[in-house]
Amino acid sequence: MKSVNFDHISANPLLPEVKEAMINAINQDLHNASSQHQDGEQAAQMLEQARASVAKLINAAMTKEIVFNSGGTESVNHAIKGVALANAQKGNHIITSNIEHNAVIRSLRRLKSAGFRVTSLPVDSDGRVRPGDIAEAITDDTILVSIMHSNNETGTIQPIADIARITRDKKVIFHTDAVDSVGVVPVDVQTLGVDLISFAANTFYGPAGVGGLYIRRGTRIFPILDGGVQENNKRAGTENLIGIIGMGKAAELAVRDLDSRLAHIKRLKDKFLNELPDYIDEYIVNTHPQHSLPNLVSISIKYIEGESVLLMLDDDGLAVSTRSACATGSLRASHVLLSLGLSHADAQGTLVLSFGVDNTETDITTLLAALKNVVSTLRAISPLYQKTNKLN
Amino acid sequence: MKSVNFDHISANPLLPEVKEAMINAINQDLHNASSQHQDGEQAAQMLEQARASVAKLINAAMTKEIVFNSGGTESVNHAIKGVALANAQKGNHIITSNIEHNAVIRSLRRLKSAGFRVTSLPVDSDGRVRPGDIAEAITDDTILVSIMHSNNETGTIQPIADIARITRDKKVIFHTDAVDSVGVVPVDVQTLGVDLISFAANTFYGPAGVGGLYIRRGTRIFPILDGGVQENNKRAGTENLIGIIGMGKAAELAVRDLDSRLAHIKRLKDKFLNELPDYIDEYIVNTHPQHSLPNLVSISIKYIEGESVLLMLDDDGLAVSTRSACATGSLRASHVLLSLGLSHADAQGTLVLSFGVDNTETDITTLLAALKNVVSTLRAISPLYQKTNKLN
Repeated sequence: MKSVNFDHISANPLLPEVKEAMINAINQDLHNASSQHQDGEQAAQMLEQARASVAKLINAAMTKEIVFNSGGTESVNHAIKGVALANAQKGNHIITSNIEHNAVIRSLRRLKSAGFRVTSLPVDSDGRVRPGDIAEAITDDTILVSIMHSNNETGTIQPIADIARITRDKKVIFHTDAVDSVGVVPVDVQTLGVDLISFAANTFYGPAGVGGLYIRRGTRIFPILDGGVQENNKRAGTENLIGIIGMGKAAELAVRDLDSRLAHIKRLKDKFLNELPDYIDEYIVNTHPQHSLPNLVSISIKYIEGESVLLMLDDDGLAVSTRSACATGSLRASHVLLSLGLSHADAQGTLVLSFGVDNTETDITTLLAALKNVVSTLRAISPLYQKTNKLN
Repeated sequence: MKSVNFDHISANPLLPEVKEAMINAINQDLHNASSQHQDGEQAAQMLEQARASVAKLINAAMTKEIVFNSGGTESVNHAIKGVALANAQKGNHIITSNIEHNAVIRSLRRLKSAGFRVTSLPVDSDGRVRPGDIAEAITDDTILVSIMHSNNETGTIQPIADIARITRDKKVIFHTDAVDSVGVVPVDVQTLGVDLISFAANTFYGPAGVGGLYIRRGTRIFPILDGGVQENNKRAGTENLIGIIGMGKAAELAVRDLDSRLAHIKRLKDKFLNELPDYIDEYIVNTHPQHSLPNLVSISIKYIEGESVLLMLDDDGLAVSTRSACATGSLRASHVLLSLGLSHADAQGTLVLSFGVDNTETDITTLLAALKNVVSTLRAISPLYQKTNKLN
C-alpha cells in the first residue's frame, strides 16, 4: 500500500509475523493434508495447529467446530444456504435485518426464489435491531435467524447475545455475520450463544480470501461445496494451506494483542471524532457512540459527494472508502444508510474511515487537515451548498 | 516436502518463480481490488494480469470468461449446481460418467435430492466414455453433460472434443473437470469446444486452494457464492490475491514450459513402465497406453495392499498415493477402478504414482528398487500370495 490506509475495512495490511509464517509455508513446499504419507501428515498438523489458534480466538469448545474456507462471503453463503437446505423439512422461514451485507441479502434472495420466506427487520434510529422484533417474527416455520455482529458501513454492533437468548429459547438456529468483528473486538461463542459465526482472516491482519465458519456442534447444516472429506466433511476441496497458516498466526496474535490494539485504535477514533468539528461543519456521524466497532467511523458530509472526497483524498495519498468494497460500482445509495433514515443526498456524502494498528495520531491529524481542504474545495463548487447558504 | 514426491497428483511443489511472485505480493501489502482509490486500482491491475495469464493458458477468447475461486472443488460445484439451477426451467436431466471425482459425484447427489435426474454412463475397458453413449442419453430434458478431462486415479484422458461436438449439436451445456489436465497437457477451449472447464493452480505448480472456472460467454449459470460484485458478478467474495498472483505466474510458466515439461515427465513415465517388469511381476497397469496424462501411472499389484506399500515406501522417504487424496479415510475400493472392471482384491493393491518436474531419472530407479523390496516383503507375508503360489 502506497497511501496512508484509512480503509482498513476493505483491506488490512499483513502483520510482519503473518508474512513470515506465510513465507515459511511457501518455502516449505507443504504437501496435501489429506495424503497419508509423512509429508501429508506434516501438512495436516500445520492445518490443525491453525485451527486450534482460530478456535481459541473465538473460544470454540472444540477445534472441529471451525471450518476453514475462502472467506467471509463463503462463510455466509454456507451458513445461510447450508442451514436452509438442511432444515427445509422443518420449515421455510428465515429472519434477517435490513442492514446486512450483500452476501446475506443475496444468499437470501437466492433462497427466496427456491421457495423460502424471508422476514427482513428494520433497525431503530441507532441502527440496531430490536430483539423484541425477532421474538415477534419467529413462527413455527422459522429455521434460521441471521443478524450481523457489526455493520461494515457504520460499525454499529448488534445485540447478538440478547437475540441468541430468544433463538435458543425458541430452538431456532442463529447465525451472525461477524466478518468485521472477529479479531477486532472480543467475540466469544460461549457468551454470545450463537450457533454459527462467519469470520475472515484479513479482519485481523491475516490474508484476504481466507476465512472460516464456526459451526456449533449439533447444528444441522449441509455443505455448499460437495466433494472430498476435508474439513470434517463440512467443506470439500484441497485447503489453501498457505493462507490458513497465515490466518492461524494472525489469530494467535489477535488473542495476544487484542486489548492493546483496541486501546490504540479507540484512541485514534476518539481523536478523529473529537477534533473533527474543528475542521469541518455540517456532517452527520452514522456510527453509534457506544455500540460500535472501535476502528470505524461513518460520517455523512452535507452538500458534497463522498466519491469526490474519496478521489481528492486519494490524490493526497490518503485511502478512504464510501461504502462496502463489495458494492463498488453500484450507483445506488447504500441500503444501510437509508435504513438508518438518512436522505439520499446525505447518504451520497458519506465517508467510511477505518483505522488500523498501522495508523498513528499524526495520520489522524493529516487526515483531518486534508478533509478540511477537500470539503471546502468541493463545497465552493457545490450548487446545493451555495443555494442553502443563500437561503440561510 | 521431505520425501521424494511421487504423489504430484495430490500436491505439486511451487516453482521458484511462483514463490517469488507470492512473496512479493505478501510484502507489497496489496489493498482490496474492489476499492476505488489507487491502492485498490493497483490490486485490481494485478488481479487482471493474472486473469490474462490464465486465459492464455487455456486459450480463452476473453479474460472475463475466467472466474477465480478457491480451487477445483469449488469450480466443479459452481459449474454443476450453477448450470442446473439456472436452467431448471428448461429441464432437469444431467449426464455424467461413472468415474468422476467426488466433487462431481456429490454435487450431482445434492442435485438429485432437489429433483434433478442424473444418468451416469459406464466406461469401456480402456476406461473411456463412449461419445455415442452420450448422444443416446441426451433427451429434451438434458441441460448439462459433465465428463472429466482426465481421471485423477488412472490418468486416462476422455474424448472431450468428440463429446463436445455432440453437446453443441444438441445445444446442451458441457462441463469438463480438467483439474488434473490444465497446465499438464494442452487444454484449449477453442479446439475442445466445451462450455465450462474446472481447473486448479496446484496442478501447474501454483498454490493449493486456488483455481478457476472457465465460463464460455453466453453460458447460462448462477453463482454459488452470492454477495458482492467481484469476478464479473459470477463469484462473490474478496479475492485471495496472493494465491491468484501465484496462479497467474504459474500459468505464465506453464505456457512457456509445457512442451519441455511434457518431454521430461513422459521420459520418466516411460522409464518407469518399461523397467517395471524387471523389478516386480503380477501387476495390472490401469493407465491407458495412449490416452492418458503423461505424469501419472496407476498399477494394481496382486496379492498385497496398496496402503501397506504406501506406508513402507513412506519409511523409505518416498511419497506415493493409493487413490484420490480427497477420498482418504474411505475404506471402500475406488469406484474408478471398479468401473474399469478390476476385482475388489486387485483394486486394493493399487498404487498411484505421479511424477513432476522436480523428479529425475535417478528418482525412478530409486522408486523401482524400493518397490521391489516392499513388494517381496509384503508378498512373503501375504496369505493370498502363498495360497496362489501353492495352487500354481
